Amino acid sequence: MTRTIQKTATPYHFHFPAGATIVTCCSRGRSNALAVAWHTAISGQPPLYAVSIAPRRFSHELIQESGEFVVNFMPLKSAELVAMVGRTSGRNIDKFKEFGITTTEGTVVKTPVLTDAMAAYECKVVATHPAGDHDLFVGEIVAIHWETDAYIPDEGLDIDRYKPLVYLSHDRYATCSSPFYPIRKR
Amino acid sequence: MTRTIQKTATPYHFHFPAGATIVTCCSRGRSNALAVAWHTAISGQPPLYAVSIAPRRFSHELIQESGEFVVNFMPLKSAELVAMVGRTSGRNIDKFKEFGITTTEGTVVKTPVLTDAMAAYECKVVATHPAGDHDLFVGEIVAIHWETDAYIPDEGLDIDRYKPLVYLSHDRYATCSSPFYPIRKR
Repeated sequence: MTRTIQKTATPYHFHFPAGATIVTCCSRGRSNALAVAWHTAISGQPPLYAVSIAPRRFSHELIQESGEFVVNFMPLKSAELVAMVGRTSGRNIDKFKEFGITTTEGTVVKTPVLTDAMAAYECKVVATHPAGDHDLFVGEIVAIHWETDAYIPDEGLDIDRYKPLVYLSHDRYATCSSPFYPIRKR
Repeated sequence: MTRTIQKTATPYHFHFPAGATIVTCCSRGRSNALAVAWHTAISGQPPLYAVSIAPRRFSHELIQESGEFVVNFMPLKSAELVAMVGRTSGRNIDKFKEFGITTTEGTVVKTPVLTDAMAAYECKVVATHPAGDHDLFVGEIVAIHWETDAYIPDEGLDIDRYKPLVYLSHDRYATCSSPFYPIRKR
C-alpha cells in the first residue's frame, strides 16, 4: 500500500460515503428540494441536526426566510430522484412537479416532508454559522417521521429489509451491506 | 407501509448510516482516539470539516487545549478496533498501547494519524460552536492523507477494492455495496 499525503486540501474530494438526503424548505408559498451530503446530528439533548448549504442555493434563501427545514433520509429506490434533484435548481423549475415528488405536511413546521423518505426530521433553525463557502444551519428536531417497518425497536435501521441510499461522489451512489457486530453485544 | 410520527425527538436514535471515523487528538504529551459518528464536511473553500464531541469526553479537553484534531476514515477491516475505541475512555487507558494502534506523525499538526485509516484529514480548529450536549469543533483541513490504491482519480473511493466501515447504531456496523450511477454521467 502506498500513501499519498497532500498538504493542501484543494481540490477537495469525498473520501468517505455519506447518507444521501434531500433537504426540503418552504417560504412564502415557494418550496424547494435540495440534495445534501454534508449533514450530521450534533446534539442528543436537545436533539440538534446540522446541514451545510451554500448561500448561492435557492434553498438557502428559503431556509433563511422561514427559519425551518426538513432533512429527508432517502432509500436506495429513490436514487434517481436524488440524483435529479441534485442536478437542478429550484430557481428554474418546480422540482416537486417536474419529478413527481409526493409530500405530506409537516406536523410542526410548514415545510413538506417527502413521502418516499425512510425517515425525516422536521427542524427549526436555532443557529446559523457561516462556514467558508457554505452556511451551517443548526436545526432543533421538533418532529421525527419514519417508516415503521424499516426500523427495529431499540436497534435501528433494518438494513436487510430496507436499503438506504449512500452518496459517494460525482453522481456515484451505493447502498449498505448486511449489518454485523464487530464485538459481542454488551 | 405504515408511518410513525413522533413529535418529540427523545429518545433520539440513528435513522441513517454514517461513516465510521476515529478522531485523534494530542495535547501536552497526552494522546487519545475517539470513535465519532457525528461529523461532516461543511465547506469546500476553505476546506472545513466539523466533528461533534461531548464536553465530558477526554478528547474534548485535548482538542480544546491543542486546537487541532485528525479525522481518520476507517475501513471495514478496522471494525473491531473502532468498536473497542468507542467503548473505552482515554482517561483510564492508553488506547494506542491497549489496542496496538499504529500511527504516523501529522505533517502540519502534532496529532497522530492512524496508519490503518483509508483517508485522514489533519485539522486546525477555527471555530467551536456549543451545540446542546455537544460542542461542534470546526477544523480547517491543512493536510490530507489517503491510501493511493483506494481511490480512483477524479472519481473517489474505489469501493470494489477497498471497503469503508459504516456505523449504524448500538454496536452495529456495515459496509457499502458496489457503486452505481442512477443517471447517465454528464
